[in-house]
Amino acid sequence: MASLATAITSLIESKKYGTLRDILVTMNAADIAALFEDLEPEMLPRLFRLLPKELAADTFVEMESDSQELLIKGFSDSELKEVIDELYIDDAVDIVEEMPANVVKRILAQADPDTRKLINELLKYPDDSAGSMMTTEYVELRPNWTVEDAIKTIRRTGIDKETINICYVTRADRTLYGYVTIRRLILSQPDVLIGDLAETTNVISCKTLDDQETVAQMLSKYDLIAMPVVDGENRLVGIVTVDDAIDVLQEEATEDIEKMAAITPSDKPYLKTGVFSLYIHRIPWLCILMVAAIFTELVINHFSNLMSVQFQSFISAMLLACIPMLMDTGGNAGNQASVTIIRGISLGEIEFKDLPRVIFKEWRISLLAGATLAVVNFGKMMLMYAITYHNSFTTPDGVTHFTSYLLIAVTVSIALCCTVFLAKFIGCTLPILAKKIGFDPAVMAGPFITTIVDVTSLLILFGLALMLVPKMM
Amino acid sequence: MASLATAITSLIESKKYGTLRDILVTMNAADIAALFEDLEPEMLPRLFRLLPKELAADTFVEMESDSQELLIKGFSDSELKEVIDELYIDDAVDIVEEMPANVVKRILAQADPDTRKLINELLKYPDDSAGSMMTTEYVELRPNWTVEDAIKTIRRTGIDKETINICYVTRADRTLYGYVTIRRLILSQPDVLIGDLAETTNVISCKTLDDQETVAQMLSKYDLIAMPVVDGENRLVGIVTVDDAIDVLQEEATEDIEKMAAITPSDKPYLKTGVFSLYIHRIPWLCILMVAAIFTELVINHFSNLMSVQFQSFISAMLLACIPMLMDTGGNAGNQASVTIIRGISLGEIEFKDLPRVIFKEWRISLLAGATLAVVNFGKMMLMYAITYHNSFTTPDGVTHFTSYLLIAVTVSIALCCTVFLAKFIGCTLPILAKKIGFDPAVMAGPFITTIVDVTSLLILFGLALMLVPKMM
Repeated sequence: MASLATAITSLIESKKYGTLRDILVTMNAADIAALFEDLEPEMLPRLFRLLPKELAADTFVEMESDSQELLIKGFSDSELKEVIDELYIDDAVDIVEEMPANVVKRILAQADPDTRKLINELLKYPDDSAGSMMTTEYVELRPNWTVEDAIKTIRRTGIDKETINICYVTRADRTLYGYVTIRRLILSQPDVLIGDLAETTNVISCKTLDDQETVAQMLSKYDLIAMPVVDGENRLVGIVTVDDAIDVLQEEATEDIEKMAAITPSDKPYLKTGVFSLYIHRIPWLCILMVAAIFTELVINHFSNLMSVQFQSFISAMLLACIPMLMDTGGNAGNQASVTIIRGISLGEIEFKDLPRVIFKEWRISLLAGATLAVVNFGKMMLMYAITYHNSFTTPDGVTHFTSYLLIAVTVSIALCCTVFLAKFIGCTLPILAKKIGFDPAVMAGPFITTIVDVTSLLILFGLALMLVPKMM
Repeated sequence: MASLATAITSLIESKKYGTLRDILVTMNAADIAALFEDLEPEMLPRLFRLLPKELAADTFVEMESDSQELLIKGFSDSELKEVIDELYIDDAVDIVEEMPANVVKRILAQADPDTRKLINELLKYPDDSAGSMMTTEYVELRPNWTVEDAIKTIRRTGIDKETINICYVTRADRTLYGYVTIRRLILSQPDVLIGDLAETTNVISCKTLDDQETVAQMLSKYDLIAMPVVDGENRLVGIVTVDDAIDVLQEEATEDIEKMAAITPSDKPYLKTGVFSLYIHRIPWLCILMVAAIFTELVINHFSNLMSVQFQSFISAMLLACIPMLMDTGGNAGNQASVTIIRGISLGEIEFKDLPRVIFKEWRISLLAGATLAVVNFGKMMLMYAITYHNSFTTPDGVTHFTSYLLIAVTVSIALCCTVFLAKFIGCTLPILAKKIGFDPAVMAGPFITTIVDVTSLLILFGLALMLVPKMM
């Protein structure tokens, strides 16, 4: 893309507008928008004016909001009107939502009265609701029309409709009756009644205030390309299309990933986000978790004092050196469980009622995993004894305290097993409980699990050591 | 769902098949399939036989492969043939791919010769390729046909086509010429030529061997509901539809999340996966990372020996108690960067050429974040001094070594700052480099970053302490 940007720049500088137009019209809106992002901002207005009307509007929709704002500011009133008239209502609303107040005023002033009214209505729905993501451009048929009537209506009004692949059938009071696919229409005889043709059972619809993620999941689950949106009285007010649903699903996946990595989610692509904004999204959790680590510090302090009374210093040092391994393994084991569960919740596969099944499953996994890790760790520690620690456990007069080392190895291995057990348990229950009490599973469970597992694994290690390892070794 | 399952079970037991059928036909295929998963397996064949032919096939597609296998084994040959005849080819291929060899043989034997040939051809494409995900059922038109011819053809053949919302136009040698939407057809006069109506520039297509994730991203990027798939000679061989693209995108997001959490990805939902299989997907990384922690152990051992010569024991203990905080903060900072970059790569927002920009951005973020964390940590340590450590730094004869404590606090704060700096750098470069040399960014960067950051942060802490803190404190 970089080399295309260079070529385009030099064409603009040498004012070869004819050639530029020929290149641009062979491109897709999404690709032109991506190209625009690579160019100097002052070139955009000139290039944009070269685009044919429809392609211009499509490109405009695909652009980042910074560039849109820049273009709008450079538009004459008539240019602005031309672009707005070409936009689908839901795209227009998305753009208006991102613009500063003075630009919004200009946009609304240039939109024709009907469009203005629609935009204002759609702006009232809360962010992240089906209402804010729907479009009001769809084909509406009545049950008492014939297929011929319907096709005539579509011919007359259908050009501007965002999707006419599915037509919605409403009663006289505009309540939803059913739907009929365009394929069904085209395959039917002209005199058949729409009411007889329409699918009226199993009509999947959503409410204006439904959460957009739920709506997107439904489109995906039922393999739909559009879904009707109804108000409180079951009156059809809009449709949600699959292309917007994909965007929502992708955004939600990104948000979950960010939350699990202790980042406050942002809705802009990384390269478009400023350094300070990225910093602001990352620093709170870094600070909170750093300060939370005070608990591990206090635990270590407390027990190293105890151990300095009971153990020789090389024993304390050995136990302390195991801490990172223990904490990391615990963190990894907990994360594996929590991440699996959080994703399962997001995909609608795991619900609160599954909690006992999940706990039982993780319990069995942690038995297997804990045992494996304990055995591997024991083997590793015995190997380390043969190579390194042998001397520490031999007194100057030649007595070898092999049993003591064995007890330490056993202690660490048991602590490891318990830690894995506990980490998996916390990792699988915390997200489900968080969801149940109305918190975000990814936020609650992701960042906190490590801290909780850290502290408990230390308590287990030191507690066991003080119990099992012989005093004054 | 649980209560519906109970109700259905009791209806089956009391053999109220009429009522059952009445309930089932009001439900969607996806919901029936979900219900089936909650029932006892031996009830499935009886329930399945109650479904009308088309709904039965749709439900069959939505079911888990275990249940599909169970049903197929219970089918008579003619029942099996009926279901297969109703399936779209791409769904049939998906099912065949999951079945054991003897079941595959039965399916192929019951399929009619044309279907069998198609299934066998599609099975040849590699997993995860566009070819394996496409369907061969689409509407194909010729440029020299009129709209009337086209509509007649669609009426004659369109019933079974997976999507007739977009018709593809091919030349006599079946190379792709362009496409025409059904909306365009229906809005046009009957005598217009398809060749004049078809969109022939900007026809987005993919090749049979293209990666399915790339193809799904393209459908999302260009807001398509279907995309043509061509072979090496640009001949149309199939189409990929948006519902399959959504599934691929969701699967890939799940896989990325799993890989970042050190899990080998599996393609089954959590609740459907056996304990042993989950264990096998999780244990390798747990073991590898546990054994890799041997490096942190060696570093701590080495330096605690050095420190026991140079520092009084409570200084060593203080520094050791800081380790979990330092390692966790480093791990969190690195993860924030790596996870953002990995998701950016997956969404196609970040490429290798962006590496310098990414590094520069993370460099500035880490300056801000490192400085903030260092200041907060310094404040926290001074507070701890006032509360707890004051006594340790006062000799029995009353002399207070406040300067020494100050130097330790400075050491830990600088180490923290350096660790964040390094963690962000590794976190942002490792995924991009991994991608460049052909490794999976999520696998390479996710699990390893913690281990790398652990070791380096310890080296920084101990190195600084030995340099800055006065000897024999």
